[in-house]
Amino acid sequence: MPSIEVVLTPALWELQNAENKNIVVIDIFRATSTICAALHFGASAVLPIKEANETLKYKNNGYLTAGERNGQPLPGFDFGNSPVLIQDKKLFGNKLALTTTNGTKCFDLSKKSNAAGIFGGSFMNLSATANYLTNQGKDIVILCAGWKDQFNLEDSLYAGALVSALQYDFDLHCDAALMTMSLYQCSLQVGLVNFLKKSSHYQRLNKYDAKGDMELCLSVDVHHQVVQLVGDELVLI
Amino acid sequence: MPSIEVVLTPALWELQNAENKNIVVIDIFRATSTICAALHFGASAVLPIKEANETLKYKNNGYLTAGERNGQPLPGFDFGNSPVLIQDKKLFGNKLALTTTNGTKCFDLSKKSNAAGIFGGSFMNLSATANYLTNQGKDIVILCAGWKDQFNLEDSLYAGALVSALQYDFDLHCDAALMTMSLYQCSLQVGLVNFLKKSSHYQRLNKYDAKGDMELCLSVDVHHQVVQLVGDELVLI
Repeated sequence: MPSIEVVLTPALWELQNAENKNIVVIDIFRATSTICAALHFGASAVLPIKEANETLKYKNNGYLTAGERNGQPLPGFDFGNSPVLIQDKKLFGNKLALTTTNGTKCFDLSKKSNAAGIFGGSFMNLSATANYLTNQGKDIVILCAGWKDQFNLEDSLYAGALVSALQYDFDLHCDAALMTMSLYQCSLQVGLVNFLKKSSHYQRLNKYDAKGDMELCLSVDVHHQVVQLVGDELVLI
Repeated sequence: MPSIEVVLTPALWELQNAENKNIVVIDIFRATSTICAALHFGASAVLPIKEANETLKYKNNGYLTAGERNGQPLPGFDFGNSPVLIQDKKLFGNKLALTTTNGTKCFDLSKKSNAAGIFGGSFMNLSATANYLTNQGKDIVILCAGWKDQFNLEDSLYAGALVSALQYDFDLHCDAALMTMSLYQCSLQVGLVNFLKKSSHYQRLNKYDAKGDMELCLSVDVHHQVVQLVGDELVLI
């Protein structure tokens, strides 16, 4: 039976072997949620880029741009990192170059791993992603973006939701996977939003009036396609 | 109000500032449990040492020695890392030099932090430790030893038990602290032993016939003194 492992922060990535495995990159607040929203709204592709300056070079070169650092939009970009505001009619049919504090660098790390496939995970398309990965039947590594290399609650919660959905078809020989599954099951008693209200990122984003963003990021199964990295760009498959 | 933070593995230690804080080192299976058992049984002090060769130099130089790598006893040492077998009458009144795979190096890391105090945590003296730290009223950092820099379930579970006990007198602005508290509260539904049966370290130790060790490591509040590093040695205070 294939296995699932969870890497709780990018700082632990170097301990991981992801060769020939399917990697799911998670940055729930908000990069991978924004990517999922943008693609389902009608963006034709999202190009994740680690550096902000590099991202701006794509502006007016066939891409719209979205940029965020420390939870706030970057000047000169067409969009910030809001999954609500990204759903703008000017996005429809266009490509988007995106840079964020934590999420986009995880795609860079993943690309160096000789992985079988690289996916973007979000609550919005949880079941679609789980079903696709089950059908593929390959080992899975879930990479949580965290916050500046620190553990965070919302990415682990999504990891746990995905592990819960996959647990009957995959082996769990990874303590981090077992932990995230327990965490997710705990959260069901109070709901995802309540469970995360004391988390550091929820409180940070709440200050920036991003409550609507967080509610959308925690909406389960509102979309039904899978987000995969094809070449350097994320697309719906 | 002072704060509590949890560091889930030594690989994340460099992100942490522990200056003037109380550090609690945790290696439930089994270093800090064995240290607690040895001291309460009558050892006068335990000297934690990162390297095995260095530890052996203390043999017949005023110390008994205990050594373990990858869960198994090391040749040439008086003891392995079993909290059950360490309770041997020859230990009574003597000092012990101890080296283990994960736990002892965490005391080394802690000593470089200009911490206010450094403690060894175990379920065996959970409440004593919690009460002492509450009375001290200083910020706390809980350092989980993990397994070869990876996250593990049992250390996080203890961290959560300690955070649960301290939550009314300390601030929790740390997602890892919130996670461990939820994890511990989850575990209460089935009990610590059952909760850990699928964990990697439980399964590893089970192969080595160390079930009795694990049961002792998960016995709550059987001892009532606190384990603190004084100079280079752990003693009861």
